Amino acid sequence: MATSTSKVVDIHTHMYPPAYVELLESRKSIPFIRRFDGAKDPRYIILPSEAESLDKITAAGSSASANLPGRPVTSHYSSLAQKLHFMDTHGIDISVISLANPWLDFVASEEAGETAKSVNQEFSNMCASSPGRLFFFATLPLTAPPETLLAAIGHIRGLRYCRGVILGTSGLGKGLDDGALVPVFRALAANRLTIFLHPHYGLPSEVWGPRASAEYGHVLPLALGFPMETTIAVARMYLAGVFDAVPGLRMLLAHSGGTLPFLAGRIESCIVHDGHLVCSGKAGPARRTVWDVLREQIYLDAVIYSGVGLRAAIDAGGGEDRLMFGTDHPFFPPLNSDEQGEWESMTWNATAVSKALGDGSEGARKVMGGNAVGVLRLWEDS
Amino acid sequence: MATSTSKVVDIHTHMYPPAYVELLESRKSIPFIRRFDGAKDPRYIILPSEAESLDKITAAGSSASANLPGRPVTSHYSSLAQKLHFMDTHGIDISVISLANPWLDFVASEEAGETAKSVNQEFSNMCASSPGRLFFFATLPLTAPPETLLAAIGHIRGLRYCRGVILGTSGLGKGLDDGALVPVFRALAANRLTIFLHPHYGLPSEVWGPRASAEYGHVLPLALGFPMETTIAVARMYLAGVFDAVPGLRMLLAHSGGTLPFLAGRIESCIVHDGHLVCSGKAGPARRTVWDVLREQIYLDAVIYSGVGLRAAIDAGGGEDRLMFGTDHPFFPPLNSDEQGEWESMTWNATAVSKALGDGSEGARKVMGGNAVGVLRLWEDS
Repeated sequence: MATSTSKVVDIHTHMYPPAYVELLESRKSIPFIRRFDGAKDPRYIILPSEAESLDKITAAGSSASANLPGRPVTSHYSSLAQKLHFMDTHGIDISVISLANPWLDFVASEEAGETAKSVNQEFSNMCASSPGRLFFFATLPLTAPPETLLAAIGHIRGLRYCRGVILGTSGLGKGLDDGALVPVFRALAANRLTIFLHPHYGLPSEVWGPRASAEYGHVLPLALGFPMETTIAVARMYLAGVFDAVPGLRMLLAHSGGTLPFLAGRIESCIVHDGHLVCSGKAGPARRTVWDVLREQIYLDAVIYSGVGLRAAIDAGGGEDRLMFGTDHPFFPPLNSDEQGEWESMTWNATAVSKALGDGSEGARKVMGGNAVGVLRLWEDS
Repeated sequence: MATSTSKVVDIHTHMYPPAYVELLESRKSIPFIRRFDGAKDPRYIILPSEAESLDKITAAGSSASANLPGRPVTSHYSSLAQKLHFMDTHGIDISVISLANPWLDFVASEEAGETAKSVNQEFSNMCASSPGRLFFFATLPLTAPPETLLAAIGHIRGLRYCRGVILGTSGLGKGLDDGALVPVFRALAANRLTIFLHPHYGLPSEVWGPRASAEYGHVLPLALGFPMETTIAVARMYLAGVFDAVPGLRMLLAHSGGTLPFLAGRIESCIVHDGHLVCSGKAGPARRTVWDVLREQIYLDAVIYSGVGLRAAIDAGGGEDRLMFGTDHPFFPPLNSDEQGEWESMTWNATAVSKALGDGSEGARKVMGGNAVGVLRLWEDS
């Protein structure tokens, strides 16, 4: 049981296995992958604004333009060798890999069970090929009927390197505060499977204003929309009483909880000052506060790119035991330097840990890997 | 020039002068004030969900119900005596009062200039009636023609107790990153008038999910929608280059900047990793970063209800010199105790300052009042 705190673990790192890439290439609406004549890599189109600019390019017949929409699907997306190279380049001992958004949210109900099974098996095989260096968060077939969904949990609990599931915010179509999800949460908790909550849908595009897509790139939807989506999802779960209903539920929140550490105080103030919640008894003194849930059932990744944010994330959880380092690889590749070299997604986040906790300190070692090893049981015979 | 740091100053505190209340009472769509038979106070209806539940109550003929929508318009809204009582109860020496949202955003173009003039004059008179204890942020007629808008700045610059303007995020209808606003920002900067940026519109209601308005009160739109609206507005201004175009611009952001202190690192990362911004030269090395703007042109109020959030707000600005205490009075009255007594909006935020900086420390004294006195020149002969 290697719980040594000197290991560096990346718990926020995505893979697109070849079968999933094929699935995305077969699609016509977002999300999809499109190949262009003259372009080195295919492009992955996720955002509505990207699909719109693709339509314009196609209409103008300028598909070989250097300014293609979306992001290049480089070998970093699906090559295990490339993942291991990234890990070696940055001194990462263990990666807990996961399928990236939007997972299987778009898969037809009757296919979702089989697709999930094959994707999860593929992740399992990847981990087995580098024993001890790779673990994974599995994918759930959320569009499938309830019995298929629960059967999928039965499948992944038996996979040796599986330590949880990556989950978006849509749930069964009505969000994560949907009572129909409670049996799913209970099954995950009973099997000690941590939920890695990750955004994908962001916010409605009108909030970015008329200049956004033409002038500001994807900064606003990615930098603000994603974290707010996560925050809304967790706040809704909290207000619906999900954390009380499933005390064994453990969630790891992407991007240091979105904005939850910063806004927890305001959420608490709004609860105790809300006439509706006070009258209905939901804001009573016996209530477990948002702070309680942050300290007892929530972990945060350290993908926040600043010491200021990381310090708040640490303080919100009552100490450095609930934070886990991550990189978000293969997203955000370096644009001005070699992709095979150092990535700022690593260096900014590692520097934030040093700034917040002291370079090489016991706290920094916990966040860089010790917490992940202990919480996710990152040893082979678990 | 009394810049003593022992004064307690509340820079986030609203008033509804009687003429403005009359204006709201004359309206049929949000925002409006409605009186009900049998109810002690009229109700102020701001949110779409409140207007919907009002329609249901009216249809059911149950207008005397204790569960009326909106918030009671108590004497705290428009009574100056009540404001001074609140200040005395909580040891507040000076209040910088402002009209609350949505200000004059809904006023017809041809009336906006005169309405602004009379509202600003009314605020000026209130301040003059308690010299040294009250200053104010004026209101701009944003729906008026440009010359009327600029003339309004000419009017308020001559008002003895005016120290800035309170501004929402809609601008001239296209947001604060609208180039047409630059002359307005320049005129404010030239007259050393600080912009107090305050949210009102929140986020589109669908993001709160199907259970929100029935089960979660107004927690989500107020606790999450408001801060995200502020963050989006400032990020859009930053990306449009407004802070560079108007170096003298000074903004005080409500609710500790929404979520900006926590997300500044992620915004920076998204900028330097955005192909569009990198190719267009907007992400170049000479760029002033979001952190630079936070340290040079932005102040934050301390209305964040937690030491965790306040610490991040302080660190984001490079120290405690850019934070100013506030209460958000008369919103969020105590629901379980006497409205004439102590309010948690005061105690939670004052406690946050003590937790983040040490009770009675020099830093705490700056945040509690010293910074506001210095930055806003809160002395009579300014």
